[in-house]
Amino acid sequence: MGRIASLATLAASLVVVVGQTYQRLGGCPSLGCVLPPDQSDFLPGQYFDLRVEVHAPVNGSEAFNSGKPDENFSVTITKEGGRKKSIAEFFRIKEPELEKWDFHWYEDLFAEDADTPSVVNVAAKAYRRLAIYEPGTYVVELSYYGGQKTQAEWVVRPLATKKKAKNVILFIGDGMTTNMITAARLLGHKSINGKYQSLLQLDKFPVLGHQMTHSLDSYITDSANSASALYSGHKSTVNAMGVYADSSPDAFDDPKVETIVEILRRVWDSAWGAVSTAAIADATPIALSGHSRSRYNYGSLVDQALNSVTNYTWTNQKGPDVWFGGGAEQFYPGKDSYKGQDYYAQFAKAGYDISLNKTSLLQLGNNSKALGIFCKSHMPVWLDRNVYTENLAAFSNDPLGKKAPALDLPGLKEMTLKAVDILHQRGGKKGFFLMSEGASIDKQMHTLDYDRALGDLLELDDTVRATIAHLKALGELENTLVLVTADHGHGFDVFGGVDTKYLSSQSTNRDKRRAVGVYQNSGLSQYTVPAKGVSYNTGAHFPVNWDPRYTLAQGFGASPDHRENFRVHKGGPRLPATNISGFEADDLFANPVDGQDGFIVNGTLPTDEPQGVHSLTDVPVFAMGPCADTFGGVYGNVDVFYKIASCLGLGRPDAKPGKLAW
Amino acid sequence: MGRIASLATLAASLVVVVGQTYQRLGGCPSLGCVLPPDQSDFLPGQYFDLRVEVHAPVNGSEAFNSGKPDENFSVTITKEGGRKKSIAEFFRIKEPELEKWDFHWYEDLFAEDADTPSVVNVAAKAYRRLAIYEPGTYVVELSYYGGQKTQAEWVVRPLATKKKAKNVILFIGDGMTTNMITAARLLGHKSINGKYQSLLQLDKFPVLGHQMTHSLDSYITDSANSASALYSGHKSTVNAMGVYADSSPDAFDDPKVETIVEILRRVWDSAWGAVSTAAIADATPIALSGHSRSRYNYGSLVDQALNSVTNYTWTNQKGPDVWFGGGAEQFYPGKDSYKGQDYYAQFAKAGYDISLNKTSLLQLGNNSKALGIFCKSHMPVWLDRNVYTENLAAFSNDPLGKKAPALDLPGLKEMTLKAVDILHQRGGKKGFFLMSEGASIDKQMHTLDYDRALGDLLELDDTVRATIAHLKALGELENTLVLVTADHGHGFDVFGGVDTKYLSSQSTNRDKRRAVGVYQNSGLSQYTVPAKGVSYNTGAHFPVNWDPRYTLAQGFGASPDHRENFRVHKGGPRLPATNISGFEADDLFANPVDGQDGFIVNGTLPTDEPQGVHSLTDVPVFAMGPCADTFGGVYGNVDVFYKIASCLGLGRPDAKPGKLAW
Repeated sequence: MGRIASLATLAASLVVVVGQTYQRLGGCPSLGCVLPPDQSDFLPGQYFDLRVEVHAPVNGSEAFNSGKPDENFSVTITKEGGRKKSIAEFFRIKEPELEKWDFHWYEDLFAEDADTPSVVNVAAKAYRRLAIYEPGTYVVELSYYGGQKTQAEWVVRPLATKKKAKNVILFIGDGMTTNMITAARLLGHKSINGKYQSLLQLDKFPVLGHQMTHSLDSYITDSANSASALYSGHKSTVNAMGVYADSSPDAFDDPKVETIVEILRRVWDSAWGAVSTAAIADATPIALSGHSRSRYNYGSLVDQALNSVTNYTWTNQKGPDVWFGGGAEQFYPGKDSYKGQDYYAQFAKAGYDISLNKTSLLQLGNNSKALGIFCKSHMPVWLDRNVYTENLAAFSNDPLGKKAPALDLPGLKEMTLKAVDILHQRGGKKGFFLMSEGASIDKQMHTLDYDRALGDLLELDDTVRATIAHLKALGELENTLVLVTADHGHGFDVFGGVDTKYLSSQSTNRDKRRAVGVYQNSGLSQYTVPAKGVSYNTGAHFPVNWDPRYTLAQGFGASPDHRENFRVHKGGPRLPATNISGFEADDLFANPVDGQDGFIVNGTLPTDEPQGVHSLTDVPVFAMGPCADTFGGVYGNVDVFYKIASCLGLGRPDAKPGKLAW
Repeated sequence: MGRIASLATLAASLVVVVGQTYQRLGGCPSLGCVLPPDQSDFLPGQYFDLRVEVHAPVNGSEAFNSGKPDENFSVTITKEGGRKKSIAEFFRIKEPELEKWDFHWYEDLFAEDADTPSVVNVAAKAYRRLAIYEPGTYVVELSYYGGQKTQAEWVVRPLATKKKAKNVILFIGDGMTTNMITAARLLGHKSINGKYQSLLQLDKFPVLGHQMTHSLDSYITDSANSASALYSGHKSTVNAMGVYADSSPDAFDDPKVETIVEILRRVWDSAWGAVSTAAIADATPIALSGHSRSRYNYGSLVDQALNSVTNYTWTNQKGPDVWFGGGAEQFYPGKDSYKGQDYYAQFAKAGYDISLNKTSLLQLGNNSKALGIFCKSHMPVWLDRNVYTENLAAFSNDPLGKKAPALDLPGLKEMTLKAVDILHQRGGKKGFFLMSEGASIDKQMHTLDYDRALGDLLELDDTVRATIAHLKALGELENTLVLVTADHGHGFDVFGGVDTKYLSSQSTNRDKRRAVGVYQNSGLSQYTVPAKGVSYNTGAHFPVNWDPRYTLAQGFGASPDHRENFRVHKGGPRLPATNISGFEADDLFANPVDGQDGFIVNGTLPTDEPQGVHSLTDVPVFAMGPCADTFGGVYGNVDVFYKIASCLGLGRPDAKPGKLAW
């Protein structure tokens, strides 16, 4: 035992040194992995899988036991104050089969440059579809290599069986930060002497909170794993949703966690839906039903949304009642649809009404399930749909895959209001859950296209405003918890004003920067000042002039090389950085045709990064309706799930369906 | 009249075109100015001055009436539903003397480059020390040039005569944003699998709000006018405090507004104090008592703090009961003190105990008023006072002006706890108001010194934690409204992790950028991981290693040219940009000795700007204690004043002092 113990100590001490830039496996700092890992929380009765792995690195700084993983590991669970039991005994299941595989990873950038991967052999087991019904603290212990132990402390949250909200609408401004909300307000709302004459709908919410967005194994998250945290109460790793990422090659065998709509359907049989301006298989909408380590399995994830998990015994969310967005390439038969099948046909066969444009969307009845897919890829943004409409013709995004543009496009507002009507009808007294996403706030911030991003933020706000009015008209406002939040941020802010005429008139980079006015020279917003001959008919709460002489000086700490002229990109979405001839394809420089009269900003990101990236910042949560008071203060993104789930009475003492009090 | 009317129309239409980069006078878009301007709010009974001006531009795009201002203007006020009265009649005062002057300004950058100033002749009056006691909406109308009118709508807020909080402590993290709070949490608090094992004190506040920081005449504010908005309920212009900036040459004749401590002393005779890690005459602390268009009149402003406004009949705040900070050069006799006088002696004569170092601070009794000035200029930051203490010797900041470093320095926590003791004693049942400022969050963010800024944010949080515990020990926690907020932001965020070893090992700018890891390659914080041989004894809630190999990738959209190696600046505060030989003194480049192994980031700001600048973002408000529930949601910075003032029963129907219910 002496040798093992000292090696264990060695391995533990190595942990501090290695595995920072790249990690062997998130949630697994030692050679034994328990997933869900230490510090996981659970809703009582929430389904989950348990994956345990024992790693034997063959080479690299962690090389151990000649690369032979211990196959005789054991796993126990102990409720605080209770008796230690094997997993099989505790959950009354059979012991699963042993699984084996290997994987490799790079320990840091030096290893990657030298192409010296570290190989790891793995012995593993998966315990499927478990649930813990009794609140409290549990310790799961994996024992391996004789004396080594990996412990995971789990907390099962309190029971919450009373359904306090009939409906929940969760708006997600993807990538939306407080900084962006502030900038959008300045664009769309007029102020006099520092006092706004109108406000964002977000500004009128009674309760405000902040949620921390960190992922399981990195402090910067992507949209898949942050959406998953919001929907399941479990943080995951970048690109994963509805699962903890294990190290196996199969992206669909990772340990799953049950999502809000799965539980809601199972307990109350409520209706559920998702609306997004992204492809509907994009991370934020698809994470409601998706269970995969890789968000890029778009076709499979669409099939999971319709048919639920089919490769393991799990739970059936019965398909969304409403599903509106882009991403037609996962629906018409072809290389991007699951097994090449026609998913318009699959959904129709399952009883869905299908809509492919705004006209037919508005004509949908409210009784049937509805699928609305309005274009390929992500939907064109509000600015192109409403102001620079001539840009729509340049897209080749027909929802049937024809080489033609999709021109009859709904906006987030039309999709959301129709979704509410259908969910209200179909949910009946069982209520509904709707997620509505302003997706291109994120997508356009990635490409530093501030105007398009903020236009979509104003569209989201306008949608929230219209939805609240519509809920009121339906008599459902008092019954509905309305939340508006984000999944992560971008390091965006406004730091002054720009005299674009002066900027354009100067000839050197350094002289052009003089056009940026800071503090008192920021002046006042010109976006709300009518300009002769400029009229977009976009209504209240949007800019009356998107292209004033004096614009906002804005930007990021994180960017690729780009050229900045601080003007609206009228010709369509921005491409800030690109490869140029004479250099490698992934060696990116400022796009020569972007902002040609501007000045060069050399980037702070790796030169193969074509766009901006997500940031660390906590993001706001705006809440109104039943349980809104529980959303004040600061908390983790997983807590958003627990607050919603508790409000919906989903913390159950047993597997029985709930009984409505109304 | 025809000619005048058409000219008036012309002048009005010109407003849209000109005056953006530079404005003729903030709050005065037409040729007649009413200050307080349109959209101003007032607390009932709050003292203020009214300034009216009539402008006659001599040249430039607004040239009018051959440069002859109308001296026969008239001013009226009408309460909604009431009768129009002259100002003299309404306020029962004598009509003041006519005043005349001229000033000049540049209309835009082209005019500044060409050195073609626009000259304006002015006729003006000032109505001094007014107050409106009846809540409601009032319209003030200035009539001039025959038919022209400038109207200002004023709202007098509801009466609030009940004192609900005995004490108020307002913590201000200068320049502190949600993004910075998130980063500081990551530095100082350990997390496991995305769950923090400890939290910031700020994270534990029950109520969270956002306040909008825009100034009167620009959407980016400075610290003087934002502090003034928080303290008086009136937004002002950049560099102004306790006044609306008029166009006269005298920086001390501008129309004043009464501040929270002036009203509190007048109504309840409560104790008040200010604590700051800045020079005590710096904008945020001095705006409690200061009334000037220019924050840079440091000496005069110190005299105003001690002796109140002396050049006009006003109100006497009786001097702070506690005043702790830096800025000794305004106290020992010399060129930076008011009229060269010894203000240590002046304060002593007024009954103050004087402390010049931490040792004597801690020995102060609690009965007397106390002045503590611990160094020249701003106080050295937490990181230098606690971690890189050898840097303190390089300062020449002795509080008596000797050429020696100040080494016996208190931190924000010691100053604040002592202040609470004295204010508690001196306020007695009348209670107290304390403002405590973490000033160098802002100052170090300006110089892109992220570590020093975030260190001071952690110090602020630690101070809040200790203060809450101390209030509890004193039995005052339940009686005290505790607020933590900021006055404005900086466009800072964290966007990944940096392998500083890799960065340092690469030779080109572009290769070095590869060291920045985004998303999953951000990894986990190394600041909370113990490192061999590294021990600062800074206690819980601070990093255990400020200089790990893997640091945070962080930055700004707004910066001067600088070189970034993402490492702690051990040798003392950072100087990111500097002038270099062969160029003009104000033509700044990346400092050649800063971050020498890093990569160059060319700036986005004018090349004469040596550091970063403030940003637009709404900033958070954390609240606990009496009236905390009124601080949720989104509101203007002036509303912070009205919420505090209402909680303190300062909305008065008459000029009589209040009567305590306890």
